[in-house]
Amino acid sequence: MKLYNFSRSSASYRARIVANLKGITYDYVSINLMRGESRQPSYQALNPQGRVPSLEDNGLLIPQSMAICEYLEETHPKPPILPADPFGRARVRALALMVACEIHPIAGGRAQSYLGTLLNANADQRAQWGRHWMTEGFREIEAMLTNSGDTGRFCHGDMPTMADAFLIPQVYNAERAGVDLAPFPTIRRIYQECNKLAAFVKAAPESQPDAA
Amino acid sequence: MKLYNFSRSSASYRARIVANLKGITYDYVSINLMRGESRQPSYQALNPQGRVPSLEDNGLLIPQSMAICEYLEETHPKPPILPADPFGRARVRALALMVACEIHPIAGGRAQSYLGTLLNANADQRAQWGRHWMTEGFREIEAMLTNSGDTGRFCHGDMPTMADAFLIPQVYNAERAGVDLAPFPTIRRIYQECNKLAAFVKAAPESQPDAA
Repeated sequence: MKLYNFSRSSASYRARIVANLKGITYDYVSINLMRGESRQPSYQALNPQGRVPSLEDNGLLIPQSMAICEYLEETHPKPPILPADPFGRARVRALALMVACEIHPIAGGRAQSYLGTLLNANADQRAQWGRHWMTEGFREIEAMLTNSGDTGRFCHGDMPTMADAFLIPQVYNAERAGVDLAPFPTIRRIYQECNKLAAFVKAAPESQPDAA
Repeated sequence: MKLYNFSRSSASYRARIVANLKGITYDYVSINLMRGESRQPSYQALNPQGRVPSLEDNGLLIPQSMAICEYLEETHPKPPILPADPFGRARVRALALMVACEIHPIAGGRAQSYLGTLLNANADQRAQWGRHWMTEGFREIEAMLTNSGDTGRFCHGDMPTMADAFLIPQVYNAERAGVDLAPFPTIRRIYQECNKLAAFVKAAPESQPDAA
């Protein structure tokens, strides 16, 4: 199994956490986004979307971090990253999607770059744009976490799930972007809990072979 | 089962398609986004995220369209909206996520509105922003569809899947936003195929009780 990914890619970080939680070993193939390697023809021939991460297994390529995590759950069910009951599974997926849909793609580098192209946004404005969407998204996630008795040591109960694997990389980014996390005590608590586990620590950007 | 949704919400449209494909009847609860009803306390008490769609089943509330679709698949497996094999399931999920993550949240109304707030973007610039992300996302989806023998009458084989349920509402939006679809013949063909099916036609915005 090969994971095409990059140390500083937040979506790659999610897939690394899930692989680690399941004890899956994989070949780390670095696609350095800082050098534009995801846009090179050799990678695009594998993954026409030209993004990371993508997972190669049995000669087949899977793009999109959530599709990769669900695939790992189906092919390596133990330990599970989704609860057993349909409503719990929906809650975990919804929390992961609140990061994957409502925060990461809007706040991220591609959107910020086009703000410069289309609207001449300067660096401060682009950074403010990013912080805005992280703050908005965390507000909704914090509300969903505090609103439910299903929240435990982690986002859902006392075992880490896909929701934690998506939330933690976003909090990591937010800290570096200067987002004020004071209004989100539950998110901060879960971030600390997750970072007590080797599966999360070993997945962090600075622990990867292509770390800057 | 109640679906809190709005005729013109693209994410609501996805959930309606999947419910229709499975022959699931539900109570249609209109949350009129044009009147800000998703931000009203009565709705936020149910769904702290304050977005549509959300599904109420057995007294529990599920936000996020993809979490809803996966829940309907798990609780009403026939007919399936995901293939049986793990790689096929991953491919369908990846295609759906390419709409749900890379296009819809960036191109959509909330992001466009904040462009005005932060950068004084005018109506033309906001519209250009939306078309840009739809075009970029469709380029990647078209490449993924044409690159694979798994593409059939629909996005994956000859039965509609979750990938089609996500793609069709985005194409519907793109047509109305004036996106040039000429470069995406496979997407256009699949759009036409889907719209031959009652499940898709009945889910369209203009067919809903709260249509403008």
